[in-house]
Amino acid sequence: MIARVNRQVVLKSRPVGAPKPSDFELVERPLPPLGDGQVLCRTIYLSLDPYMRGRMNDVQSYAPSVGLGQPMVGGTVGQVVESRNPAFAPGDLVAGYDGWQAYGVSGGAGMRTLDPAQAPISTALGVLGMPGMTAYVGLLDIGQPKTGETVVVSAAAGAVGAVVGQIAKIKGCRVVGVAGAREKCEYVVKELGFDACVSHHADDLVAALRAACPAGIDVYFDNVGGAVLDAVLKLINMNARIPLCGLISQYNATSPPAGPNLAPVLVNRALIKGFIVSDHTDRMRDFLTECSHWLRERRIKYLEDVVEGLARAPEAFIGLLAGRNFGKLLVRVSEDPTLGAPR
Amino acid sequence: MIARVNRQVVLKSRPVGAPKPSDFELVERPLPPLGDGQVLCRTIYLSLDPYMRGRMNDVQSYAPSVGLGQPMVGGTVGQVVESRNPAFAPGDLVAGYDGWQAYGVSGGAGMRTLDPAQAPISTALGVLGMPGMTAYVGLLDIGQPKTGETVVVSAAAGAVGAVVGQIAKIKGCRVVGVAGAREKCEYVVKELGFDACVSHHADDLVAALRAACPAGIDVYFDNVGGAVLDAVLKLINMNARIPLCGLISQYNATSPPAGPNLAPVLVNRALIKGFIVSDHTDRMRDFLTECSHWLRERRIKYLEDVVEGLARAPEAFIGLLAGRNFGKLLVRVSEDPTLGAPR
Repeated sequence: MIARVNRQVVLKSRPVGAPKPSDFELVERPLPPLGDGQVLCRTIYLSLDPYMRGRMNDVQSYAPSVGLGQPMVGGTVGQVVESRNPAFAPGDLVAGYDGWQAYGVSGGAGMRTLDPAQAPISTALGVLGMPGMTAYVGLLDIGQPKTGETVVVSAAAGAVGAVVGQIAKIKGCRVVGVAGAREKCEYVVKELGFDACVSHHADDLVAALRAACPAGIDVYFDNVGGAVLDAVLKLINMNARIPLCGLISQYNATSPPAGPNLAPVLVNRALIKGFIVSDHTDRMRDFLTECSHWLRERRIKYLEDVVEGLARAPEAFIGLLAGRNFGKLLVRVSEDPTLGAPR
Repeated sequence: MIARVNRQVVLKSRPVGAPKPSDFELVERPLPPLGDGQVLCRTIYLSLDPYMRGRMNDVQSYAPSVGLGQPMVGGTVGQVVESRNPAFAPGDLVAGYDGWQAYGVSGGAGMRTLDPAQAPISTALGVLGMPGMTAYVGLLDIGQPKTGETVVVSAAAGAVGAVVGQIAKIKGCRVVGVAGAREKCEYVVKELGFDACVSHHADDLVAALRAACPAGIDVYFDNVGGAVLDAVLKLINMNARIPLCGLISQYNATSPPAGPNLAPVLVNRALIKGFIVSDHTDRMRDFLTECSHWLRERRIKYLEDVVEGLARAPEAFIGLLAGRNFGKLLVRVSEDPTLGAPR
């Protein structure tokens, strides 16, 4: 039997600007007995994603904010330990939304069973999970790239950006990434097959983008906003499409940031469309079918940045907002039975 | 026979910031003889519109800029004086694009004959012309207002904004204008039937808009950009639509202005779409049919601000960019034979 004690990382204080380690607290709490229909899962992997920064604020964004003293929310892959829900049996590997804790109790809504023979279970939080699905619907349904067009994606080495660029290559586009570190730029070109990658640290970002996009920019998948969006707008082509997926450059902002000059949007009849992947669940089957296929064919590759232990989640998350991760950021909370003991 | 001398207002220097009277020059030039297929028109009305500011810059925007020493471009209503084109006969009243001059010579492309029995010929430059068509396609095709939704329009008393608001009322929406002067706000509410109008000079524009839009904002037809757009974004509802028609707040800017914080666009899955009326000529017949009908039924009203004499076009245009006109700004260049002599 398992210990009836849970470990959780809870929100201790609401950050002003960048989160600090002291905004989080690791606590032990008793696990409640299961009610009818509930499932108890041991967390194996916790996904860390930029959207979590918004949940730390006392302002409703997409979803309610996390209460003080409550565990941080987040996608998880785990194993069922106990079940009073007929859809799940002990031993099942599942993707769910149990948050920053060693064990999660849920009603099973939104949980799906994983088959480790199909793909490593951690991919359910990355290339075959929410980030991959975000890339798929944002690029294909909003960006609508056509063969020969130029697609630019920011945070190009990130969990979403890497998939955006690779799908755009599959669709026959010229693909240009924007990333920070030189290693990330090299990775997306050499490993993922992007045509070019520009560092947002470039002295003249517009000039660097122009050199990488000699035919202008038709689709910009924006994960960052700020100076990169402003620079891209100066180079957009007629009828450009800009799926607006994230604004990580301003998630830690303490005052409302100024946005881009929208004159090029007007002149070029461009479209900017905010979206959130959870509005597009009707595309989940298409996404899993197509993306699993591309993964098996090695037309899509992925990289994971795995941090060991729930206690390290806060520092890993702080690093994510600063761009210090390299690949999909995951926390291994407990042993992955499909791999063996944690390293 | 007419005098073979033309009067033109030409671009003398490219303005930095707001145009000055000295950026224009009134010149006399000989009229060339007509070539095969050409038409000579006497200009009756010249339309002054904000987009003309962009044509004064040495940067291609929608269209090539006006060359130094060349007449300013613009929509006109005139009367055919001579014709070597079988589609037009002397005496015909026509809408065309002859620019800031007393006479225009053209090949007849884009010219259409007007029937003064249907509507005053000046309306071909306003409510039944480019501004009205802009309102029609931007609101209906991009904004897609639904009954009961809240529609906000800036430059509400202007040639485009006044039509936007009235069509939105016909479609069963709550309509809130944004304008500058108190007289303009009163006009759109009392004369045009808007539900409310907020002055962009309000101390707290967001609070004023919130009070006028208790159910939030579903469609924002933007003619101005800048602070109004930023304030509106703070109040948009889920899946809001923002037809981006103009950015008059920054047309005189000498450095690239910062735009709005786009975070609400992301969170609310909103759409911003730049557009230009000339892409939508397929909707011209629908527009003329519907809008003429509404005009006859007096469900759409209009106001004209008519300046007498071509020589006054520069000062009138400078005033337009500063919001000093009240109603569709026209220059009466010569006698309107459907009205009698100019006042």
